[in-house]
Amino acid sequence: MEIGIVGLGKMGLQLALNMIEHGHRIIGYDAVEETREIATEEGLEVARSLEELAANLSKQRVIWMMVPAGAPLENVLVTLAGLLSEGDILVDGGNSNYKDSMRHAEEAKKKGIYFMDLGTSGGVSGARNGACMMVGGEAAAFSVIEPVVQDICVKNGYLYTGESGSGHFLKMIHNGIEYGMMQAMGEGFELVEKSLFHFDSKAVAKVWNNGSVIRSWLMELAEEAFEKDHHLEEIKGVMQASGEGQWTVETGLALQVPTPVIAMSLMMRYRSLEEDTYAGKVVSALRNEFGGHAVIKDR
Amino acid sequence: MEIGIVGLGKMGLQLALNMIEHGHRIIGYDAVEETREIATEEGLEVARSLEELAANLSKQRVIWMMVPAGAPLENVLVTLAGLLSEGDILVDGGNSNYKDSMRHAEEAKKKGIYFMDLGTSGGVSGARNGACMMVGGEAAAFSVIEPVVQDICVKNGYLYTGESGSGHFLKMIHNGIEYGMMQAMGEGFELVEKSLFHFDSKAVAKVWNNGSVIRSWLMELAEEAFEKDHHLEEIKGVMQASGEGQWTVETGLALQVPTPVIAMSLMMRYRSLEEDTYAGKVVSALRNEFGGHAVIKDR
Repeated sequence: MEIGIVGLGKMGLQLALNMIEHGHRIIGYDAVEETREIATEEGLEVARSLEELAANLSKQRVIWMMVPAGAPLENVLVTLAGLLSEGDILVDGGNSNYKDSMRHAEEAKKKGIYFMDLGTSGGVSGARNGACMMVGGEAAAFSVIEPVVQDICVKNGYLYTGESGSGHFLKMIHNGIEYGMMQAMGEGFELVEKSLFHFDSKAVAKVWNNGSVIRSWLMELAEEAFEKDHHLEEIKGVMQASGEGQWTVETGLALQVPTPVIAMSLMMRYRSLEEDTYAGKVVSALRNEFGGHAVIKDR
Repeated sequence: MEIGIVGLGKMGLQLALNMIEHGHRIIGYDAVEETREIATEEGLEVARSLEELAANLSKQRVIWMMVPAGAPLENVLVTLAGLLSEGDILVDGGNSNYKDSMRHAEEAKKKGIYFMDLGTSGGVSGARNGACMMVGGEAAAFSVIEPVVQDICVKNGYLYTGESGSGHFLKMIHNGIEYGMMQAMGEGFELVEKSLFHFDSKAVAKVWNNGSVIRSWLMELAEEAFEKDHHLEEIKGVMQASGEGQWTVETGLALQVPTPVIAMSLMMRYRSLEEDTYAGKVVSALRNEFGGHAVIKDR
């Protein structure tokens, strides 16, 4: 089929190439000229504007957005709202908050446009070679895009989850679980590294990937990372967060479901972004006040 | 080769059958008569005492213990100490504390006996069809048992880790990571189950097992569990702990390595064992004292 892809960054470009390989006609667009040029070099047909993109797609248009959640996505949606017509299908393949996706679906519906919230997992290599997708939105629109979803996912690698927002909700929970799994692995390998024994973390990850209970794709990635850099000396332990972990914890709070491990994983990410903490200053000051314990002077 | 297996429970019996399938001669022993009978029915050659077991093995004896850590293991070791002779090899394939294993290795060494600490992962199916093993202890003894270890593990599924204690240490960390991974999954699926959407947890686990970042053996087990019991209505959320998680956290404390997620996973297990908590009574009492908030009377 014919698909417009908005956002040709790491994920968008690989998904586009994956679709092309499966015989689909792709027209891409990205707001950044350099990104458009890279995509052109990769053999993509690239429009220079959203207007050109919309004009070059035949109806019922399918526009697949791989755009950062928040303002960048909102901007694209506002522009596209003026360009699309009844029956067209918008697919948000990014990491949007499911509540935003529910709102987007409602707004789109007023104009007779379908809005699908599609969570994408599997990383960059998955986008290129076979991804995992969770799709919410109207069934009528899902049946239109299902063939391409099936083509670009691994076998059994997509799930239609029903109501608008449910696809991104599920992707959010997926990422929350991912936070906990990764933090647990991080803690375990720090103990391995700092133990009194003499382990080769690469060999440890490798044996754990063969027959153990914790074998997993993340452990395979750990094995590859330790292969490249035995003690990860070239990497700082700064753990960025893109929103999904926070939303998972917020969802736990809203539903009054305890999610201590996912919450703690998120907090450890925040901590890793700070050189020092104000909480640490407070505790240190209090220890000094009541017990005369030495403080380390800042500056 | 010829191996004595002490402890023919869930894991020991399956390992024995796995070894037999690979052409090894196994003599088994278990303290419980009924367990010995089951093993005999499974075709095992079974001794009626540790004395008989030791007498029927040719030297250099290899005795592989799959006995619960702590008192049961200590008892077996005391008895075997009087029965073995120089050069014999003891293999502790259970979940012993690595510090105990270091002590056992030292004590055995005084008698010229080798003591290998061998952590076993992969569950009951792994024990039967291909396990994952981490082995500490003297290299000379490892080279004797390596052929059978290789036979009963999956490809690349064993690692010789060097110093005595290092095999059980690594298995301990493995289980600590497992605690965190499982708790993160538990929290995620509770959010899936209690969300405003209508998910089929079995289908969710299945899609996550195909191409997603969190695909893993544990997620495959979740898929199977949801297949059997859609909402896990037949299972109480009581999470037993066998010691490895606690030791991982204790190791973190000793090394002053923060392991908040593994610690929290452990605490959530403890919480799950309580119908009510004393901490909850205290907090409830204090809320009542300062704010007149209602308390729920017990009894």
